[in-house]
Order: sequence, then C-alpha cells, then structure tokens
Amino acid sequence: MDDEPTTEILEATFRALRERGYADLTMKDIATESSLSTGSIHYYYGNKQNLLEALLDFLYERHVDQLDSVMGTTYRERLLSLAELLLSDVDGRPGIAFRTAVLSVQAQAPFNDTVRAKIVEFDTAVFERFRVIIAAGIESGEFDEDIDPTIVSEFLATMIAGAHTRQVAVGRSLDPIYDALVDYVEDHLADGHMSRVTS
Amino acid sequence: MDDEPTTEILEATFRALRERGYADLTMKDIATESSLSTGSIHYYYGNKQNLLEALLDFLYERHVDQLDSVMGTTYRERLLSLAELLLSDVDGRPGIAFRTAVLSVQAQAPFNDTVRAKIVEFDTAVFERFRVIIAAGIESGEFDEDIDPTIVSEFLATMIAGAHTRQVAVGRSLDPIYDALVDYVEDHLADGHMSRVTS
Repeated sequence: MDDEPTTEILEATFRALRERGYADLTMKDIATESSLSTGSIHYYYGNKQNLLEALLDFLYERHVDQLDSVMGTTYRERLLSLAELLLSDVDGRPGIAFRTAVLSVQAQAPFNDTVRAKIVEFDTAVFERFRVIIAAGIESGEFDEDIDPTIVSEFLATMIAGAHTRQVAVGRSLDPIYDALVDYVEDHLADGHMSRVTS
Repeated sequence: MDDEPTTEILEATFRALRERGYADLTMKDIATESSLSTGSIHYYYGNKQNLLEALLDFLYERHVDQLDSVMGTTYRERLLSLAELLLSDVDGRPGIAFRTAVLSVQAQAPFNDTVRAKIVEFDTAVFERFRVIIAAGIESGEFDEDIDPTIVSEFLATMIAGAHTRQVAVGRSLDPIYDALVDYVEDHLADGHMSRVTS
C-alpha cells in the first residue's frame, strides 16, 4: 500500500490548521497547502471530520515518539527533560504551531466524542510519563517516598496545559512556567529536601 | 435606548456556543435559541464575528463582577476565595458551560486580533486580581516579603488556565487543582512558613 498521498494530505491539513484554526478550515484550504485536488482529498478522507480524526492519530504517533526520546541518567534529569520538551520552543520540537493546532482541536472535544477520546490520549500520554518517572524515582530512593506520583503528575500536567493554552491564546511566554516547574521539582520531589533546608 | 433584543441575542449566542462550539455555530442556531429571526440578529450584529466580539464584552463585564465579589477578612482568605470561585462548579458561578464557551473562543484568538485582545483582558483580569491581593498581603505582613507577586500570580493564573482546559477538553476534575493551590498558598505564601516547618 502506498500511503504517500495520505501522508501529504495530513501534513497539509496540519499546516492549514495551524494557519487558520479548525473553525474556518475548508477542504479547499487543505488542497491549497498540498499538490492534490479537493476531489482527491475527499476520495481519501471523505470529510473534514474524518480528516481531523486521522490527523490526530498521525500527530499522536509523532508526539509519543518525542515524549519517549527524553533522556537522563537520573530520574530528576528525565523529569526535567520531559518538562523542557513540553515547555520550550527549540527547533525540531513540537513548538507553538503544534500547540496552536492542538488548542483548536481541544475546543472541539466537548462536541465530538471521537475527538475527545483522542485528546484524552494526548493528555494521558503526558500524565503517564510523568507518573512513571516519579514512581521509579521514589522506588530508587531518588525522590521523597512521601510524595504521591498521581497527585504530582496531575499538577505537572495541569501546569503544562495552562502554559500551552496561555501561550497560544494570550501570548504568554513558557519560560517562567518552566522555571517554576524546576523550582517545584527541586523543592518538593528530591528526597531529603526538608533536611537540606533545615540543616 | 432599549437594549432588550441585543441582550436576548447575546444570551442566545452564549447558550448556542456552549452547546455547539464556535466552529459549528450558525446564525440559525442562535435564532433557534432566541425568540428572534436570523434577519433580526443580522440587523443588530451583522455577522457571527461581530456577534462573538459583542458576546465577549458582555461576558467580560459579568466575569469581572464575579471576580470583584470575592470576600475575606484576611488576604489569605481573599486569595483562596478567588481560587475557589475560579475552580469550583457551584450554582450561580461561571461553571463548566462558561469555560466550554471560553475555550471555544480561545481557540480563535491566534487567528483574530480583536478576539485575542479580548481574551487577553479575561486573562489579565484574573492575573491582576491575584497580583493585587498578594502584593497587599506582603505589604500588610501577612505574606512572606521574599515572594514575588508577579511570579506567583503567573503561576496561579497558569494552573487555573490548565485546570479549565483539562476540565473542558479531557473531563478532569477541578478539585485536585484547588487542593494543590491551597497547599501551595499554605506552604509558600504565609510569612514565617519556614520557621513553622523547622520549629
């Protein structure tokens, strides 16, 4: 099976979504971004709704690959690398264009159960990676055994979601939120942080 | 000037936006939610874009009135009342319906400068109220003088934005985020929190 035209259509949909948002997106906009006709796009994907769902699967695979590329010799390093991946605008990383497209799709989630289920997968992918790193860090003795990996991951996932929404919609920088997360990890997660403060 | 039909149109637009989202909203949907014809709605507001802008001004006034209704005899109480207003689903408060409409509009902000400017006003209204309470609490000696009101308010506004995005798009509860904010205020803001921990 040759999937080249479908990949080209999905890449074109992603570009058009970043530039126009979902509300004003038309099949014609997507055709303009690609070398294909609106007829070909309809042939492969039927309608805008199906195309959006296929795009979410396509972006999810890419997103998970990036999340899994996070490295570090300690759990603290892995946690901060993951936070940095999610809160920086370095070349080759998701970036504001990706987050603009995601916000546009998130706004559709309350009105479309298929889209919502896919948006939940994006959220869970981030939440679970934080939870696994924190749980392993506690197990290894690197993080304080009194912290709850689920509560901390919920907090981190919420900070990151808020930073993304505010960057896209309001134009706030991600940098102070990354700094706040680093402080939080240093102050709350490291085993013996209290004894360091009081000694 | 009789503003009854315009108020009715804006209330109907708000209901239709909560139920359908901005992407699929039509003038006909708004007419269905009101006692007016699509012709009357066009007469008063021209198009969907103008109507959205008028709705944002209408909701902003209401939002600011609610933010300003926050009470408390101490700055800590005022701060937590503000957090509770923003992170609870009690009757008569903004609620998930309001936040669903806001997310739908936030997704339009990158593509429309007028909408973006209004969304910035919503964000600034929350950020500034936190900043003013924290600055006054430091001034009064209730909060630690080493904290930076701008950094803390940025952090709180981001947590709240993230909790709203995740509630609407992913169905997460606001409760753990309210609890995390209460812990944060108790652990980081109160003057002498370090001496309490170590004494």
